[in-house]
Amino acid sequence: MVNTTEPWIKRLGIEMRQPSLTDNTADVDRLAKAIAKVVGDEPISIPFPLIHHIPKKLREYGYKTNVLVYEDMGRWHLLEVFPAHSSETICGLAIDLGSSTVVIRLLNLETGEKIGEASFLNPQTQIGSDILARIHYSSQPGGLEKLQNLILTALQKEIKNLASKNGIIPKNIFGLALAGNTTMTHFFLGLDPYWLCREPYIPVINRPQLIRAKELDLGINPLAPVLVFPNVGSYFGGDLIAGIIASGMTHQEETCILVDVGTNAEVVLGNRDWLIACAGAAGPALEGGVASMGMMAGPGVIDKVKIDPETKEIQFRTIDDKPPVGICGSGLIDLVAQLFLAGMIDLRGKFVKEACGERLVREDGILQFIVVTAKESGIGKPLTLTQPDIDSLIRSKAAMYTILTTITRTVNIAFQDIRHFYIAGTFGSYIDPVSAITIGMIPDLPLERYVPLGNTSLEGATMVLNSKRAKEEAFKVRDQITYLELNVNQEFMNLFSAAKFIPHTDKSLFPSVK
Amino acid sequence: MVNTTEPWIKRLGIEMRQPSLTDNTADVDRLAKAIAKVVGDEPISIPFPLIHHIPKKLREYGYKTNVLVYEDMGRWHLLEVFPAHSSETICGLAIDLGSSTVVIRLLNLETGEKIGEASFLNPQTQIGSDILARIHYSSQPGGLEKLQNLILTALQKEIKNLASKNGIIPKNIFGLALAGNTTMTHFFLGLDPYWLCREPYIPVINRPQLIRAKELDLGINPLAPVLVFPNVGSYFGGDLIAGIIASGMTHQEETCILVDVGTNAEVVLGNRDWLIACAGAAGPALEGGVASMGMMAGPGVIDKVKIDPETKEIQFRTIDDKPPVGICGSGLIDLVAQLFLAGMIDLRGKFVKEACGERLVREDGILQFIVVTAKESGIGKPLTLTQPDIDSLIRSKAAMYTILTTITRTVNIAFQDIRHFYIAGTFGSYIDPVSAITIGMIPDLPLERYVPLGNTSLEGATMVLNSKRAKEEAFKVRDQITYLELNVNQEFMNLFSAAKFIPHTDKSLFPSVK
Repeated sequence: MVNTTEPWIKRLGIEMRQPSLTDNTADVDRLAKAIAKVVGDEPISIPFPLIHHIPKKLREYGYKTNVLVYEDMGRWHLLEVFPAHSSETICGLAIDLGSSTVVIRLLNLETGEKIGEASFLNPQTQIGSDILARIHYSSQPGGLEKLQNLILTALQKEIKNLASKNGIIPKNIFGLALAGNTTMTHFFLGLDPYWLCREPYIPVINRPQLIRAKELDLGINPLAPVLVFPNVGSYFGGDLIAGIIASGMTHQEETCILVDVGTNAEVVLGNRDWLIACAGAAGPALEGGVASMGMMAGPGVIDKVKIDPETKEIQFRTIDDKPPVGICGSGLIDLVAQLFLAGMIDLRGKFVKEACGERLVREDGILQFIVVTAKESGIGKPLTLTQPDIDSLIRSKAAMYTILTTITRTVNIAFQDIRHFYIAGTFGSYIDPVSAITIGMIPDLPLERYVPLGNTSLEGATMVLNSKRAKEEAFKVRDQITYLELNVNQEFMNLFSAAKFIPHTDKSLFPSVK
Repeated sequence: MVNTTEPWIKRLGIEMRQPSLTDNTADVDRLAKAIAKVVGDEPISIPFPLIHHIPKKLREYGYKTNVLVYEDMGRWHLLEVFPAHSSETICGLAIDLGSSTVVIRLLNLETGEKIGEASFLNPQTQIGSDILARIHYSSQPGGLEKLQNLILTALQKEIKNLASKNGIIPKNIFGLALAGNTTMTHFFLGLDPYWLCREPYIPVINRPQLIRAKELDLGINPLAPVLVFPNVGSYFGGDLIAGIIASGMTHQEETCILVDVGTNAEVVLGNRDWLIACAGAAGPALEGGVASMGMMAGPGVIDKVKIDPETKEIQFRTIDDKPPVGICGSGLIDLVAQLFLAGMIDLRGKFVKEACGERLVREDGILQFIVVTAKESGIGKPLTLTQPDIDSLIRSKAAMYTILTTITRTVNIAFQDIRHFYIAGTFGSYIDPVSAITIGMIPDLPLERYVPLGNTSLEGATMVLNSKRAKEEAFKVRDQITYLELNVNQEFMNLFSAAKFIPHTDKSLFPSVK
């Protein structure tokens, strides 16, 4: 991504007159004044630890320098002093702090170019894979410190590796932007998440101010500003704000929707004039999380399924073409859609015995469908889809559809009026919209309206690190957004019940599904 | 001193609505907003280490709090959160960092009242009593660190003692203002003074920004803002700026002069519209520093002398009425003035044999006058004043008078036009203006114009700590002041030569001296 807008961390060429008997301004003041003249604003904030080195540097550089400054809350802050025409790469780090996967991206702050990227398992998963388990753990003595320490230590190590792999000194990382959900950012900052999951669900902080990297011991330049994305509330975090920034929906005249599909379905609807958001539990089924054969994307995981409606023959694609070991979320959505289209499950999601034939077996009283036989399988036993797996997916997709219906109804907008339907998240990128429409998870819109955006959390963090406008926008969006509390009332339950069919009780809503 | 003006560190009563499902603003943001509403300005800066404790405190205090905030560079910063109606004494510390004596004053920041005061020897004197020796030492490996460490360690200890003596917890000291000369403040901040004493005499910094106490490990509240007075240059330090603030001369319509008598004679002339300053070496004689019997004020030190012009009988007063052990600066000025008035020294300062009688002796070829006989003395031997002692004092007083003449001539003002003649410094308070006029050290003005101000450095620091206006004024004064570089040219030397008489070659300048 090329840096098209004004940066907020930047290098300036600063030349000063040499001191003399007729101009005995102190070195630090001389530099601060010269910077103020260039940025057009004073006073320049000079961090105390820098002061000590300025006289020596100015003399060594003959009062011709490059300085690195950043802007925050309307004031410029000095970050470093280099010799004039220095050629150091000024780096920044964008982080997507996921509860399971963490992605870090090293950037050249002056060109906006990506230098390198790495992802790793959030080490807090060893405490608990789900967030509530970690919140519970954090209330034990030393628990919060342990959780913060786990992520900070891992980050420090991974940042060091990524930097070294790309020939960068970590001390030359002069800015960091981090997007994560509210709980993840609380852990990162060492803030107690106790009240996040207890009525009335109050975060410690919504809008963290820039903090210096040294407060968190990340191994990067200790004075580097660390920007943690603001959150709207306990259930609407900075990752979503980053997603909104990445989608560009706030610059569009026409109304768009942004959906982050996961255990929580997070939805933002709006345009350049207004934004409304809501979040609701969808359950882990959409991510393949509960299916017997479900697993995270990886080698041998089925991510695409095709069933011949005539022969009922099942074709699948696995990641890296390895023998199948399980199925991921997008594969599961494909599979159920294909089973439905082949008449092997009915509109309630129940197996149709006649159509399934020998592949349908009953074990421990539970109906299950053999997707992959033991012979074809990479784990020496068949991969099966159970009736409860399908029921769970249907509940999740119904929840998603109901949330989408509710939020659009609130602002009186028809699905057809939505110009772009953005799907956020790496997982979202793999979903086949046709399959998702087939099972009635998302509205039956022309396919070109669906735009997978990939890791919008990382992309938003990258943008905010590179651009003053994007940085300011993140906080503006946070303040502007209307958060719609989902009331699980009778109307919601009615909508939900109607959506618990494939694709829906009202078939007219899904004309493309035949 | 009572706090008459608006403080910049203050306690505010802040009451918030309890969070609810319809108002789920985060705790930190809720507090920041509530503070912003009271101070009328946002955003409020919340230091990172405070964030962690805010949720617990707000809940414990039922969202009714007292907060301590301070203002800096147009922004309010949170310092601490107390329960509503808390009764902690909010303390501040004003420091006069002298090169030989350090005075610390504990204040109640809300009433402006003095809680306690202590003074101690600057431990850097063990490195060298004069400043140049310390600057030299600081360029040795580890020298600067040692000098900084000496003063910080001593301050930490003395602050702790003073606080404990007054039943104050050091953590309840929430602000500190320190005035000292440019070299002393450089050592305090750990800044290299190398260029202070080398042409073109460039300080590391003129206008230090507020720093947090934790950067200096002073044992007070780690978030407390530390204000180090700005300096005008290497030879015109923050102690003088503090003096100007303490004198109040910047609020007066009529022109005043402020003189700090010491090894350096520092002089400020001006009124509410303009300020001009200069500094010149006067030598240590005015402080009694070079006289054979000279010493710092203390028990048994002669601070007042009277000689009967008829009988030549010498009467003296000693501190604490102890047997005499030496003489301080003010005593020395008295002594020489009295010797002159009794005709025992002539207008060149030479002993008049006939008038001195038996008290005049010659030892090792040097003429000396027995001020106190061995029998009266507290040290078992006579206390004597030598001819070189007098010569040295005359050179110093002539330098002082010449500086005063030069600065007033520069702005074309007669001594008579000076409304108040302020004498700064503890030592200055003890000088008898009649004696100082008699020896021709200061102009022959009506006595009521002379106003001893005591420790103006400490007083200015106190005012700046207590008042937003005084704080802003200190920096404004620094920027406004015109520093007059003293050219030791032929004209200066002529003036100096003319002043090397008692009281002066031009007797018409001192009509009161008979």
